[in-house]
Amino acid sequence: MAKIIVDAFGGDNSPLEVIKGCEMAIRKLGTEIILTGSADKIKKCASENNISLEGMKIVHTDDVFDIHDEPKEIIKSGKNTSMAIGMKLLSDNKGDAFVSAGSTGALVMGATFIVKRIKGIKRVAPAPILPADRGSFILLDAGANTECRPEMLVQFAIMGSAYMERVMGIKKPKVALLNIGTEETKGRELETETYKLLQKSGLNFAGNIEARDIPKGECQVVVTDGFTGNIVLKLYEGMGSFFSKKMKWLYSGIGTVGALFSINKIKAFKKQMDYRETGGSALMGVKKPVIKAHGSSDAKAFFNAIRQAQKFADGKVVESIENYVKILSEREQTE
Amino acid sequence: MAKIIVDAFGGDNSPLEVIKGCEMAIRKLGTEIILTGSADKIKKCASENNISLEGMKIVHTDDVFDIHDEPKEIIKSGKNTSMAIGMKLLSDNKGDAFVSAGSTGALVMGATFIVKRIKGIKRVAPAPILPADRGSFILLDAGANTECRPEMLVQFAIMGSAYMERVMGIKKPKVALLNIGTEETKGRELETETYKLLQKSGLNFAGNIEARDIPKGECQVVVTDGFTGNIVLKLYEGMGSFFSKKMKWLYSGIGTVGALFSINKIKAFKKQMDYRETGGSALMGVKKPVIKAHGSSDAKAFFNAIRQAQKFADGKVVESIENYVKILSEREQTE
Repeated sequence: MAKIIVDAFGGDNSPLEVIKGCEMAIRKLGTEIILTGSADKIKKCASENNISLEGMKIVHTDDVFDIHDEPKEIIKSGKNTSMAIGMKLLSDNKGDAFVSAGSTGALVMGATFIVKRIKGIKRVAPAPILPADRGSFILLDAGANTECRPEMLVQFAIMGSAYMERVMGIKKPKVALLNIGTEETKGRELETETYKLLQKSGLNFAGNIEARDIPKGECQVVVTDGFTGNIVLKLYEGMGSFFSKKMKWLYSGIGTVGALFSINKIKAFKKQMDYRETGGSALMGVKKPVIKAHGSSDAKAFFNAIRQAQKFADGKVVESIENYVKILSEREQTE
Repeated sequence: MAKIIVDAFGGDNSPLEVIKGCEMAIRKLGTEIILTGSADKIKKCASENNISLEGMKIVHTDDVFDIHDEPKEIIKSGKNTSMAIGMKLLSDNKGDAFVSAGSTGALVMGATFIVKRIKGIKRVAPAPILPADRGSFILLDAGANTECRPEMLVQFAIMGSAYMERVMGIKKPKVALLNIGTEETKGRELETETYKLLQKSGLNFAGNIEARDIPKGECQVVVTDGFTGNIVLKLYEGMGSFFSKKMKWLYSGIGTVGALFSINKIKAFKKQMDYRETGGSALMGVKKPVIKAHGSSDAKAFFNAIRQAQKFADGKVVESIENYVKILSEREQTE
């Protein structure tokens, strides 16, 4: 069974919702959990809320990474935050994956310098799985690298494909390059150059995708630079909230009879759009699986993030990426 | 009364829906219309569909700008397309504004080289008005200039503010810089430099806006480069379609009783989200008002685009921008 390291002090609802989520994972999935953070506080919180800590091992530290700290603080020596310790444990093979709802910037920094990048991979990219009309898709880079070179975007495509194939079970996922038009001449130099590289990458490259087609879900891997990706991710969230609000307002008038007719559909739709269902963002490009859970995660979201981390580890995504990078670099040398 | 030049052969539904929209504008607003395009085809279409051409003057040309042509074709001599002729008429002061549903790229090119830019303005930017939870906002650049310098974004802010103030009647519109975080150190060099310039611009600068807050509508002018702006515009449209589809599906189950309760709300919401209501994108930075109507515009959308063009001309937006640019350049010289 997978052993998952969890930062007990990341996110707005820590440690209570973290511990609850871990308890669910132990009960439902048989996961082994290593919690990082203040042992006293964890035990106190668990006992006050009648949560069993059975199956959880605590690695104690009093220090917590503050969400307002500069990301680079995470790698300063002597800072034994619950996040840094979690990543050190992961790096030392004490667990199979790490989950934290702390600062994305710090996680990317820590993943890069503590857990370290996969050989040949240039950048670590946070990659959320977003809901679409048909299925879901992985978006990367969702915010870490605001300036990218074409070869980085190709690596994002490789990593996203490996994830969708091995974790989500999609064979030969369709890869699309986010652009302002479908023609290969569209966009900035970044897009036109990336387009050429993706064409000969051996991936299932479907060409450019315009932003209006993203929600259709016809492509399962959408690649772009971290600035644009962050805009897409947040607009996706913002539009979701906007429409949820509007839908509530619309439904406030339909009366009980109408609501009865549609309650199951509404539930299904809400579930489809709920970020808590997908878990969190995978940090792609790191030697071992790291999952960034949403900052406002509740127990269910932590449970799903842990499940995702377990699938990430079991799916041998990292090995698959290593393999692909090796093949690609060998091919480049013979060209 | 304003005299509006309209390209009869732009968009998917030309010339029928164009002529219908013009007829509505003449009847409801008392607009004078100059149509550009094949006189025979316009007259035949009007007579077949019982549309009166009273109040419309036709400036004949057989040539039409093909949507697949390269934008620069618009300024090649000898190409007297309905779009090029419309812009020449505008430049020659034969009308107060120009409306076309043709290619955005060609319109931007034609506006820049035929109608010409306002003195001191570096780039022409298409600027759609998008619906938000509270009111609406103008987004620029929505796709023309994929690479921008900070001073261009400041000019976009000036132009957007002038439009929202003089056409939409919003006093001191709030200007926001689209970014991946609210702190002024966030983003690329483009954003950090633009932030500093906007702070001392004299505009009502509200700081950075994250994409998730755009749909709330708390800022009325959102500025960004043309690549990012195009992604935002199209994702906005795409998410809108996605949710409309979902809403139909949800409502298909509520039954007649429920639907009766909410029909007015649904109508109000649909109207709020309907691009046909706002008209089109204003081409900001041009010496005279040019409106790019949506490619799939119907009569109602053309009517609204003509009304928008009229307000654009009546509001003296161009004069307001000229004035602001002058003040700003004088201030720079004394600094």
